[in-house]
Amino acid sequence: MKLLEDRIISEGRVKPGDVLKVDSFINHRMDIQLFNEMGREWKRIFDGVPINKILTIEASGIGIAAIAAQYFNASVVFAKKTRTINLDGELYVSSVESFTHQCTYSVVVSKKFIVPSDNILIIDDFLANGSAVTALMDIIGQAGASLAGVGIAIEKGYMPGGRLLRDMGIRVESLAIIDSMDPVSGNITFRRN
Amino acid sequence: MKLLEDRIISEGRVKPGDVLKVDSFINHRMDIQLFNEMGREWKRIFDGVPINKILTIEASGIGIAAIAAQYFNASVVFAKKTRTINLDGELYVSSVESFTHQCTYSVVVSKKFIVPSDNILIIDDFLANGSAVTALMDIIGQAGASLAGVGIAIEKGYMPGGRLLRDMGIRVESLAIIDSMDPVSGNITFRRN
Repeated sequence: MKLLEDRIISEGRVKPGDVLKVDSFINHRMDIQLFNEMGREWKRIFDGVPINKILTIEASGIGIAAIAAQYFNASVVFAKKTRTINLDGELYVSSVESFTHQCTYSVVVSKKFIVPSDNILIIDDFLANGSAVTALMDIIGQAGASLAGVGIAIEKGYMPGGRLLRDMGIRVESLAIIDSMDPVSGNITFRRN
Repeated sequence: MKLLEDRIISEGRVKPGDVLKVDSFINHRMDIQLFNEMGREWKRIFDGVPINKILTIEASGIGIAAIAAQYFNASVVFAKKTRTINLDGELYVSSVESFTHQCTYSVVVSKKFIVPSDNILIIDDFLANGSAVTALMDIIGQAGASLAGVGIAIEKGYMPGGRLLRDMGIRVESLAIIDSMDPVSGNITFRRN
């Protein structure tokens, strides 16, 4: 998606440790107009696929998923990273190894909010190792629901997550796939089909 | 806002410990259509007030703020609850006492994303003690920006936050104000003007 790639080129900053900072438009300040274009693009890509629910994970996925849901007429469920007193006992639980935070944490979804008849689109801001997506897939599997596909804003194409998921037959649609990025020069190259 | 009050009556559940669970439409599953009506209502209420930015706090505020931003043509910044390696050093920091989680945590906003010329609407899902809102106001003050008002989905009117803020001259617009709720009967009464 050229709009997103252009924005990554103009505002993204490559940092040591394989970090791409996109906090000025994706995951701290959120550009809602851009999110709308991303939602429209996923709708175009997944046109005709029955999707009634979007599943994402707090916190960065929530805004993108909320805006995208408008194009699918879907509700959104976000997996929570910690068990709070506001969550009942009836939970699906899985675990995520976070690349960003360099730790492992649990994610939970109330059993009430995913049911076997759901056709679910997973949406998240980044795909690297695929740990967050596979945790959400695990939860969808526990619920006996169906996975319609995965919509990612920015995929690190040189990391194993995308291949791992596609080799499993999962439809992964990333709006920008980075093939390489260099913290010294700041250069970012995108995958071309 | 009758639509929200009706939804609280039909789906909200009052739990011991002064907890109102609205996880089926607000803060776990998100009803995006309802969020749109809430955004439209805040726009009606704040019509004519110059607002260029919405500030909220992760995680439950993000979806509401993202949808509401469409009615204000504003960007959204969400305060983060922990310092991550993806945030630069240049941060505004404040602290929140969480009623829900019964702890104190820090919230941070990158200095890049709030500037003195900003007219900011704070949006959050709940107002009880007002600790989250006052932390966000603290950050707005540190940045030298202006606070245009506060939009809250559900205010616990019997808790001190709303009065505290209004007594400071802050314009607080809560779409539903609960005057009492009873975990035994499940009864909820709303404030009438």
